[in-house]
Amino acid sequence: MARAYLDFNATAPVRPEAKAAMIAAMDLVGNPSSVHSEGRAAKAAVEKAREQVAIAVGCKPVEVIFTGGATEAAMVLDRLPGNPGVAVQGTAHDCLWAHRSDSADNASVYAMGLANSETGVIADVPRKVDGAWQVGTQSFEYLLLDVVQAIGRVPFAFGWSGADMALISAHKFGGPKGVGALILRQGIDTAPLTLGGGHEMGRRSGTENVVGIAGFGAAIEAAMSDLEQGKWARVEKLRDTLEAAIVAEAKDTIFVGKDARRLPNTACFAAPGWKGETQVMQLDLAGFAVSAGSACSSGKVKVSRVLQAMGYDDVTASSAIRVSLGPDTTEDEISRFTDAWLARHEKFRARAA
Amino acid sequence: MARAYLDFNATAPVRPEAKAAMIAAMDLVGNPSSVHSEGRAAKAAVEKAREQVAIAVGCKPVEVIFTGGATEAAMVLDRLPGNPGVAVQGTAHDCLWAHRSDSADNASVYAMGLANSETGVIADVPRKVDGAWQVGTQSFEYLLLDVVQAIGRVPFAFGWSGADMALISAHKFGGPKGVGALILRQGIDTAPLTLGGGHEMGRRSGTENVVGIAGFGAAIEAAMSDLEQGKWARVEKLRDTLEAAIVAEAKDTIFVGKDARRLPNTACFAAPGWKGETQVMQLDLAGFAVSAGSACSSGKVKVSRVLQAMGYDDVTASSAIRVSLGPDTTEDEISRFTDAWLARHEKFRARAA
Repeated sequence: MARAYLDFNATAPVRPEAKAAMIAAMDLVGNPSSVHSEGRAAKAAVEKAREQVAIAVGCKPVEVIFTGGATEAAMVLDRLPGNPGVAVQGTAHDCLWAHRSDSADNASVYAMGLANSETGVIADVPRKVDGAWQVGTQSFEYLLLDVVQAIGRVPFAFGWSGADMALISAHKFGGPKGVGALILRQGIDTAPLTLGGGHEMGRRSGTENVVGIAGFGAAIEAAMSDLEQGKWARVEKLRDTLEAAIVAEAKDTIFVGKDARRLPNTACFAAPGWKGETQVMQLDLAGFAVSAGSACSSGKVKVSRVLQAMGYDDVTASSAIRVSLGPDTTEDEISRFTDAWLARHEKFRARAA
Repeated sequence: MARAYLDFNATAPVRPEAKAAMIAAMDLVGNPSSVHSEGRAAKAAVEKAREQVAIAVGCKPVEVIFTGGATEAAMVLDRLPGNPGVAVQGTAHDCLWAHRSDSADNASVYAMGLANSETGVIADVPRKVDGAWQVGTQSFEYLLLDVVQAIGRVPFAFGWSGADMALISAHKFGGPKGVGALILRQGIDTAPLTLGGGHEMGRRSGTENVVGIAGFGAAIEAAMSDLEQGKWARVEKLRDTLEAAIVAEAKDTIFVGKDARRLPNTACFAAPGWKGETQVMQLDLAGFAVSAGSACSSGKVKVSRVLQAMGYDDVTASSAIRVSLGPDTTEDEISRFTDAWLARHEKFRARAA
């Protein structure tokens, strides 16, 4: 039987539109920095993608800085004027968490994820009052939004959000892995991410990943079209069906973030005592790709920092899995998954009894 | 008539082997960090490429850190233990030059290009005496070699060179643009290039560019095969034919680096007073892609720092073009180029007279 890939928050399959754009871009011989015809054609492909990203993200093309992914883009936190302290949301991704200052008391930057990769929970964007971002009792000069999981799944517009910076990763919505962008509000004068030839308006030197960037542009355009057409409403129903089927048979299952506003494609649930990693391996053998925690942390046996930050005890936090659906996930895949999970859950319960 | 692409030092067309590997990698659905079957397959593609690169470069697989290109890899110069001063070879690429310390007196790192992108001149690797690299009267603890232009064109082995670090860029030998590697000698404990999930043995966090990396591996393997088969000997003869044809008609042409050991594919020559940028534009209209200076600096009207560092006056340095051949450049392309250049050179001479 065909495998069911249900790990879209880790990475999504490359969309046909992105694949076609990438294959076409492979025939662009020139270096985008070269002034000859071949160079200008390569440059045009990069600039086309920059416009596609800008339209999808709701920002100006000049605010799009292509990078090797969201993690590289997050390095901007070390490049802000005056090198200010950084406070980070407790449930944020490791690529933000790694930049938090030891003392957040004097931080003037707040970095947060808009939608959480493990739980799908969507955070409120802080309010800006008198030119300062209000987060609890603290106020900040800069706001960085990690919109990696949100883009293409829920409406978002950078300009409208008012945020100073945003991070995007192409592979979460069907672009290639290892390509992303820093969205940097025009007028903020950060130090370059890399030094050299002065590419990307001086913000990120290095010959552009033309093939990857072309795929990024095509993918985000297609993802936006999915969103506009309401494709995720069907997915949300499927996700809810999955959760209902599980709770009907396994009543003590803990659903994380179920009552919060969350991504339409993500289910995160724990069967306390049944290790998440064990579940992932058993389900993999049964033909299902899901995950325990974020992909980056896979293979490292540790308790989810995200679930701990949400107040779950270690046993629960280490017994959760994430099932994340894609725009074309089928009813059959979900029903097969549910059967497989419930059958293995019953065996776990029998062993534990 | 078909255009002739003679700007291989700016970037090389994607090789068929790389294209095939990249298209295949597009179907690898998983995130290399995921533990399920799809994740392991993506990881295997990355590790296969790491071995291909290691074999071609003459280093251990564990010494290969994939990056978004050589420029990103050069950021290691800001990540060395104790943050030492950096001295840089005068003719080095901007991505090294940007890291030079204001005072080189106390520098303990020397960063240099093995083969120059503009002239093709191959530098001698410094000697190591009593554990220190000797450059002129100075000695250094660390040596970084930019082998971007050398790899695949002249024999090089990282292990044998003794260097501490090397930079590679996939697109110079037929891999994709925006993909490269830092080769870091095992045992040197540099700070990470990017912070986050801990990818690339903790040296460079961020989901791997699986498609690009697969193309990198396939391209370097094919490039090494070209080198082993002596493909560049034919190219060197073609380059020499080009230079001989030009000097026969335009006797006052200055050939840069002609008497030095240099890459087999590169000709750099100046017709003083005839601006390099003008030549590039005229030749582009005539169907030939060549460059004035390095691609990164194209479009910025400035005098070549490389030629200045070699002692050429500003008029000569701003009147040079680079013609760089590929492994499959034909005799016909070279003869057409020579005719086109000489015809335009004659017009320039007539105007200048």
